[in-house]
Amino acid sequence: MKQGQARASVRNVYPEIEGGRFAIKRVVGEAVNLWADVFADGHDIVNAAVQYRERGKRKWQEQPAEAIGNDRWHMIFTPEEMGFYEYKIIGWIDQALSWSHGIRKKAEAGIHVQLELQEGLEFAEHLKKEARGDDKQFMKHVIKCFSNEDSYEEAVNLALSQRLSDLMHQHPFRPFIYESQVYSLKVDREKARFSTWYEFFPRSSSPKEGAHGTFKDCIKLLPRVAEMGFDTLYFPPVHPIGREFRKGKNNAETAAKGDVGSCWGIGAKEGGHVDLHPKLGSLKDFKSLVVQAKEQGIEIAMDFALQAAPDHPWVKDHPEWFKARPDGSIQYAENPPKKYQDIYPIWFETPDWKNLWKAMLETCEYWIEQGVTTFRVDNPHTKPFGFWEYLIGEVHKTRPEVIFLSEAFTRPRVMEELAKVGFTQSYTYYTWRNSKEEIREYMNELTNGLVSEYFRPNFWPNTPDILPWSLQRSSSPGYRMRYFLAATLSSNVGVYGPVYEFMTSEAVPGKEEYLNSEKYEVRHWDWEKRNEITDLFTKINTLRGQLPALQQTNDIQFFETTHPDLIAFVKRSDAGKSVLVLANLNPEQEIQGELMMPHWEMNAGDHFTVYDHMTDASYQWHGDRHFIALHPDQPYHLFTAE
Amino acid sequence: MKQGQARASVRNVYPEIEGGRFAIKRVVGEAVNLWADVFADGHDIVNAAVQYRERGKRKWQEQPAEAIGNDRWHMIFTPEEMGFYEYKIIGWIDQALSWSHGIRKKAEAGIHVQLELQEGLEFAEHLKKEARGDDKQFMKHVIKCFSNEDSYEEAVNLALSQRLSDLMHQHPFRPFIYESQVYSLKVDREKARFSTWYEFFPRSSSPKEGAHGTFKDCIKLLPRVAEMGFDTLYFPPVHPIGREFRKGKNNAETAAKGDVGSCWGIGAKEGGHVDLHPKLGSLKDFKSLVVQAKEQGIEIAMDFALQAAPDHPWVKDHPEWFKARPDGSIQYAENPPKKYQDIYPIWFETPDWKNLWKAMLETCEYWIEQGVTTFRVDNPHTKPFGFWEYLIGEVHKTRPEVIFLSEAFTRPRVMEELAKVGFTQSYTYYTWRNSKEEIREYMNELTNGLVSEYFRPNFWPNTPDILPWSLQRSSSPGYRMRYFLAATLSSNVGVYGPVYEFMTSEAVPGKEEYLNSEKYEVRHWDWEKRNEITDLFTKINTLRGQLPALQQTNDIQFFETTHPDLIAFVKRSDAGKSVLVLANLNPEQEIQGELMMPHWEMNAGDHFTVYDHMTDASYQWHGDRHFIALHPDQPYHLFTAE
Repeated sequence: MKQGQARASVRNVYPEIEGGRFAIKRVVGEAVNLWADVFADGHDIVNAAVQYRERGKRKWQEQPAEAIGNDRWHMIFTPEEMGFYEYKIIGWIDQALSWSHGIRKKAEAGIHVQLELQEGLEFAEHLKKEARGDDKQFMKHVIKCFSNEDSYEEAVNLALSQRLSDLMHQHPFRPFIYESQVYSLKVDREKARFSTWYEFFPRSSSPKEGAHGTFKDCIKLLPRVAEMGFDTLYFPPVHPIGREFRKGKNNAETAAKGDVGSCWGIGAKEGGHVDLHPKLGSLKDFKSLVVQAKEQGIEIAMDFALQAAPDHPWVKDHPEWFKARPDGSIQYAENPPKKYQDIYPIWFETPDWKNLWKAMLETCEYWIEQGVTTFRVDNPHTKPFGFWEYLIGEVHKTRPEVIFLSEAFTRPRVMEELAKVGFTQSYTYYTWRNSKEEIREYMNELTNGLVSEYFRPNFWPNTPDILPWSLQRSSSPGYRMRYFLAATLSSNVGVYGPVYEFMTSEAVPGKEEYLNSEKYEVRHWDWEKRNEITDLFTKINTLRGQLPALQQTNDIQFFETTHPDLIAFVKRSDAGKSVLVLANLNPEQEIQGELMMPHWEMNAGDHFTVYDHMTDASYQWHGDRHFIALHPDQPYHLFTAE
Repeated sequence: MKQGQARASVRNVYPEIEGGRFAIKRVVGEAVNLWADVFADGHDIVNAAVQYRERGKRKWQEQPAEAIGNDRWHMIFTPEEMGFYEYKIIGWIDQALSWSHGIRKKAEAGIHVQLELQEGLEFAEHLKKEARGDDKQFMKHVIKCFSNEDSYEEAVNLALSQRLSDLMHQHPFRPFIYESQVYSLKVDREKARFSTWYEFFPRSSSPKEGAHGTFKDCIKLLPRVAEMGFDTLYFPPVHPIGREFRKGKNNAETAAKGDVGSCWGIGAKEGGHVDLHPKLGSLKDFKSLVVQAKEQGIEIAMDFALQAAPDHPWVKDHPEWFKARPDGSIQYAENPPKKYQDIYPIWFETPDWKNLWKAMLETCEYWIEQGVTTFRVDNPHTKPFGFWEYLIGEVHKTRPEVIFLSEAFTRPRVMEELAKVGFTQSYTYYTWRNSKEEIREYMNELTNGLVSEYFRPNFWPNTPDILPWSLQRSSSPGYRMRYFLAATLSSNVGVYGPVYEFMTSEAVPGKEEYLNSEKYEVRHWDWEKRNEITDLFTKINTLRGQLPALQQTNDIQFFETTHPDLIAFVKRSDAGKSVLVLANLNPEQEIQGELMMPHWEMNAGDHFTVYDHMTDASYQWHGDRHFIALHPDQPYHLFTAE
């Protein structure tokens, strides 16, 4: 018998995740659109609002709701600070508005309403109390007139006045309020939604062939990365590398002399997760790199890979964190069908799990103290969801700006769960989505429905682990098209850089893996070189910075074309022009076709000019079918309407 | 950091209402089908189950889940008792099954698995502890073999044996279990889902024209009602009727001498809601009627109308339950555009609401004590949802068999909410759904999706308040078709009887209201008469009792036909044959058309016989298009396949 006098109901709130168990996500300044059914018994006027506040604050802020028919209401609010928010929907019967509605109908029908005016005194007193300044004086006058039969005419006019109606909406009369449960929102910084990642292995950063790269070498490459328009530079692990069961080149089970090993085989006598590989440099060098990168608009994203080489200090110091077999040995890691003989998985179910989880959190916090604000988390789907919820939740309590990218290429429900428990961004299946149907269906899955409220895709055409079949068959047009498409479909995009730029796409035969992978050896790149891929990176990344429509992923609409390899979509933003993107999905060939676009920024019958930002060419269009030809040289258009 | 070692997640449980805030509904013996996403990090084998119990019991019962792909699981359990149940979904990583899977793969690949056998001892010990009788002996033997390298061959055979696998499924190894939240289920008796209602005004029950009917007259009519196959006899209010502002015939604002008033104007000097109208008879008469009805398979459904005539005892005894205007008067009830000058609404927001609610509950409980087990609740949508949740919840705590039918013809979200807060059945828009498209769309809305889990439709072609346009234009074929259709589409059906049977469909001009409505006067019916409507009632109600497919509403599938007025659907039940229903929606005319039915109880190419239960005719069918002609005489078929 709680809330017995609060007769309104609030139901079917959207969006919210599992009854508020998890947070929806936004970035600072990004609107939260909400819908709910709000209704009551009887025939009184119902009203609704959204209330929200930063977690830990006492006072709720409020935005009014708008009825959109069939008892459905729409609300909107915009969070302005990073961190956790709470929101709830409230509904109430507004007897003041019911009264106003009733007296208007009666007065218009010529019925004497002296009794109604007297009933209105309750609401007028409420408004007198709530109103300020002139409005308070106005309400005093209203009350005087309502109370006095001699001023009946004026009282009726006041009762029907716009001013009284406005005051009633400003200061709703709601002695009884129904409150929905409280839901969660996480507000990240802008970069959570819009980021452009470049990956290289720091040990391959040396200008000298055969030399082991250093953080100092990396510093010299920062201008190159910044010029190409990347704002996040992700390094595979930079920690000491184990020697026991070290992998050789091309994933050989035994390392030859001089082999550097996989940098994911973390930990050796030089130290573990809070230490740096001696050949890369000192902590001072690393911090200097982080600072200098930031000065050039680049964040260093650190790899957070919770696993240990057999000679990692943890193995000796914390044997309880690893699951021993009956013979005392520890089973190496597997991510079927891949085997990682050089890596021990951490036993997250250990009876000592609370200490383990704390230690992992401290490891992460250590690097945040050194200036790291972005982590690319290795294989998070092989560690418990509850662990990530704890770790990310604790970090975000004091450092809400830290970005965690989930490297989980796994089943959809598992990828979604990782986003729910706190990951800021997620790797995706874009790497394997090639045909128009595949891309449209995948974008529909990501951008429509609840998943779009908490799962932020990051599109990578390749990674050190994946050289997809499509790239194996590609030359320059394919490489350019796949990055162009990733960078226009998704506002978060990344590329495993030099190997992509220089199109070094030799694969392990029959596999989607790089031959001579940098995972197992130091490679040498001619960092002075630029080519048409470099130019494409620069061009499209610059345009992404200029066109707000490309800085968000969810507002996308596909259009039909007459050619199966011609894909077309529009992205929109309140902050700028909408953008029409066209791409040739079979870019080694020229294709010709028609784009069917019934509405786009103009009315039927208009003549209009579209401007292609990729080529600086303009075209005159009319009607709703447009001829498109895309050559291998330039297998895409990025139009805005003039 | 709760449940830290329980690595599975349970998400997207279906069905459940607002996170368990409201109960889904079933009848005794009706299966609950459930679905959930259950998954975990990593590559271990995950398993799931549903656990359920009657509310207040300690021990959970359990049914296993079946994986149906993409981390989705299906579960089913069948409640066998009336009352409230709780259910939850549990998920866990089954390390025993993971071990079993792993050792099988290795053994099949010829790898020596002595270490794995030793690891298996943990699971074998668990099974030894859980198993009983022979199985315990078997497990002792397994443990002996696993522990002894000399019995390696036998140990491997045992490890791979079906018996060990079966035991592992019977006694899952799950030290850490993830539990979903607890959801609610209300289990009603069978009649909640399958009931056949007849309504008449007891004051019109006299065999003598001009005489006021009595409960004793009603008793004489019971065999007639039972013969027609009705199992619920609903009476409009049987309480004393107010004299102040009493309505005259045809809703006249002033009653003439001798006018009996609306029976919904409850309460006068003779008493209120716990009293009976003196002219109908005594409490003893009423109880005798209830008992004799029950003996003939009929329940008396009482009207529960929470409102008061101005001379109701409550108005004097509890002025705090009515909202006074500034001049001390009480505003009469309105259900726009209808006005009820003879009725005061109860003020549910009164500061004394807790006592008011209790008193209303006691009123309901009083009649339950007199033997009433079914209530038709008048205008529940003008009283607070919270009140109904309280009242029905309290009644069902001790009397889960009581049925509450919601008479709310209002907006969809409000009708749904009333079902959520506890109403067993609900009036529907069937009364105004006439065309094939309207009916299909409405059935889709009612039988698909979450609403079908808690909202039980009751289809009425008319009520004392509603003489729909369609019936105003109808003669016998239309009357028969509309009841036939209601009784086949919905397993709960009702009809406001004599006026329908005898087709007294004179309307207030321009309105969907009965002229000379029994709401305001005593009518006289020739209860000895039978006609083709009586025969249709008898026929289809009897068939409903014989064919389980008609005893449920949700399993329905529509088929295409070539004629816009030819509607066709199949209803199915595990308990009996499926039924094919055809009806002519414009039954005053003959229609001919083809039914297109690609699959129904037979394979393509089969010759088969369909038997029409309405006419006892048989037809030979072949292929998937069937010629249908429906005459006004017999504007429907009800087929089963032979």
